[in-house]
Amino acid sequence: MIEPADLSAVEAARRIAAGSLSAEALVRSCLDRIAAREPQVQAFEHLAANEALRAARALDKAPSRGPLHGLPFAIKDNYDTWDMPTTSGSPIYAGNRPSADAAVVALSRQAGAVAVGKTVTTEFAYFTPGKTRNPHDPVRTPGGSSSGSAAAVGAGMVPLAFGSQTVGSVIRPAVFCGAAGYKPSFGLLPATGIKALAWSYDTVGVMGRTVADCALLVGALLGADWLAGLDGAGTPRIGLCRTLKWSEAQPEAGPALDATRRRCETSGAKVIEVEMPAGFAELYEAQPVVLAYEMAHVFADEMARSRDKLSARFREQIERGQAIRHVEYARAKAVLDTCRAQLGDLFDGCDVLMTPASPGEAPVGHGYTGNPIFNGVWTALGVPCVTAPGLKGPNGLPVGVQAIGRIGDDARTLAAAHWIEARLS
Amino acid sequence: MIEPADLSAVEAARRIAAGSLSAEALVRSCLDRIAAREPQVQAFEHLAANEALRAARALDKAPSRGPLHGLPFAIKDNYDTWDMPTTSGSPIYAGNRPSADAAVVALSRQAGAVAVGKTVTTEFAYFTPGKTRNPHDPVRTPGGSSSGSAAAVGAGMVPLAFGSQTVGSVIRPAVFCGAAGYKPSFGLLPATGIKALAWSYDTVGVMGRTVADCALLVGALLGADWLAGLDGAGTPRIGLCRTLKWSEAQPEAGPALDATRRRCETSGAKVIEVEMPAGFAELYEAQPVVLAYEMAHVFADEMARSRDKLSARFREQIERGQAIRHVEYARAKAVLDTCRAQLGDLFDGCDVLMTPASPGEAPVGHGYTGNPIFNGVWTALGVPCVTAPGLKGPNGLPVGVQAIGRIGDDARTLAAAHWIEARLS
Repeated sequence: MIEPADLSAVEAARRIAAGSLSAEALVRSCLDRIAAREPQVQAFEHLAANEALRAARALDKAPSRGPLHGLPFAIKDNYDTWDMPTTSGSPIYAGNRPSADAAVVALSRQAGAVAVGKTVTTEFAYFTPGKTRNPHDPVRTPGGSSSGSAAAVGAGMVPLAFGSQTVGSVIRPAVFCGAAGYKPSFGLLPATGIKALAWSYDTVGVMGRTVADCALLVGALLGADWLAGLDGAGTPRIGLCRTLKWSEAQPEAGPALDATRRRCETSGAKVIEVEMPAGFAELYEAQPVVLAYEMAHVFADEMARSRDKLSARFREQIERGQAIRHVEYARAKAVLDTCRAQLGDLFDGCDVLMTPASPGEAPVGHGYTGNPIFNGVWTALGVPCVTAPGLKGPNGLPVGVQAIGRIGDDARTLAAAHWIEARLS
Repeated sequence: MIEPADLSAVEAARRIAAGSLSAEALVRSCLDRIAAREPQVQAFEHLAANEALRAARALDKAPSRGPLHGLPFAIKDNYDTWDMPTTSGSPIYAGNRPSADAAVVALSRQAGAVAVGKTVTTEFAYFTPGKTRNPHDPVRTPGGSSSGSAAAVGAGMVPLAFGSQTVGSVIRPAVFCGAAGYKPSFGLLPATGIKALAWSYDTVGVMGRTVADCALLVGALLGADWLAGLDGAGTPRIGLCRTLKWSEAQPEAGPALDATRRRCETSGAKVIEVEMPAGFAELYEAQPVVLAYEMAHVFADEMARSRDKLSARFREQIERGQAIRHVEYARAKAVLDTCRAQLGDLFDGCDVLMTPASPGEAPVGHGYTGNPIFNGVWTALGVPCVTAPGLKGPNGLPVGVQAIGRIGDDARTLAAAHWIEARLS
């Protein structure tokens, strides 16, 4: 018999609505799973077990509050929460108690979701790792920066979690931990109440058991029923794009892409090969310039008043950013604009692009959260990215592809990823 | 003899660099002015007189920290500050103490500026007014939402201040209070640490005695010397644009626009009449839809937990936003994109557009901060807007025009506004 904690969010919501599952039973099952796995996985920075049970019991007595009624969710610890500390993975913010929830957290609760706790983030959602381990193999990284959220979903501790992506911080850990991950179009959801990293890139992201879980959550936040449209979108036209950085892929990335392609074609999808324009080489140069310049501006307070509490890696990145002149930054932003204007051509004849979501399986070791080379440029362009679990690499660990859509074309991108996901299972 | 408090920021910085003015003397002069005018003007929510004097004395003993060395500035009270409360003009946040400075505040201090205090904002930078009075006529509104910052600069209390503009919250109060105001291109400066209102519109803005003051401050934040380029840009090509809402202008707006045009032409500028495309009528419909929808999302926490502490006007706006479906919002955002794509035509043959900055002089009364009809669509488009003081209306109060530039063309827009400003004096 399946444990409630192993249900997808969509299925759990269906059962709660039908009265065959209570919010309390679901939360309790998740808390049991957390108790069993947390000592090894260490996904949580703060657990709110009693508060979650209390909230679930209250929801069980009330009429439905919305599409997320009774669903437990975890929140990356760079999101403000009024009832839990928010450390952003930095000793500078140890014990920090914000006055309000981040907008998407408040909207989730408003729609009936139950906050279970705050999950580990790397230091300020940059590259210095936290304590979290990969739930499928503890010697490997869970990825970052949304390490705890990905590990919590991947370990079956919660069906839904929030992450944030500035480079590759949702899609990469989702792949490594075997979760579905969705980074919406830039600006689709408010980043209000989330500790900034780079304002041109910072994007609210979500994770779930399935692509449909991600669509359920984000649809609920927007006030749109995105589940309804998932199945009716038909067979997607797919552009297979190895990007200009295919040389950085691990050996398992090719077979994963080929297998996905084959299964999609067998099911009737048209898959064409798409070359990234050579001009996008500049994008790979421009993306880190914008990142470093903006980080140096965003973290001016921490550098001035709490320099000693920053990791050396973080400090060095800020110093790199401080050395970038505004004209260089403006030039890099112009490259982003130019490439964005070419997206129409890149998507010509396709509903979505299909690219690697990471170079391969999660690397061994905990000093490094993995290479975001297959993520950063898409984040910089602001396009929606969706990855679904299903494929395994040579070590039995998840590997993934991602569906990339046009800016603002999130619903179609989710539908395509949902269609691809069904081919993988 | 001119008081230090009456110097422009640029002139004060020059004297401090030359050793003919100390930071302490400047801060003291500003504090004297505040003591004299504050009982009537009520610009400040929190004054940090002793801290400012202490900071000024420390700067006087140290080598120059940057282009803002020793310059006093005021901060709108929706900006986080680690050493002063941040209320956002709402009883919900009475006594709220953030853990860090908003990014631009930290960057200002890093460049040597001295924080003098927090200035009154309307409730959450929306329309419910605070206590501030117009420094030129206490029966009139100072404008909003950056009421205190505009009044403080207009009353000579500080040479520089931060505001924020989501609809017309920097340019409008700057005009009403006789300050120079500059709303940069959307995203030029980080809004990190500023209480959000609507994420597609929220923009850091600045006020100064002159356009050059605004250029000095923003250049310092970016790490660019924008002062140097102000004078070398030549005579601007100006497109006079009455917009589609000219019928909402007060009687004094026409003469102000005509007088500015005449003086510019006399000095050799080519001024052409520019019609806003008829399609922009949709922009005036779309702009408030995006605003209300986003506000409903941003303020989910306050509506859920602190509803009774919101003004009726604010609550009604949130309820309007909650009633907007995502498809309507998406349609409104698409209108914004369409109009943005037509900006190239609108600016054809011009360096900047010249439009009214407000319908006219500040209205009498304190229940209403004035009509932002000449501001909101420009904010929604993300273009830079600059206004300079100099013209007076029939009641002897300031009226203003604004220079509007292409997205990202901030330096040229400032230079044009600086050129126009010189024609007004």
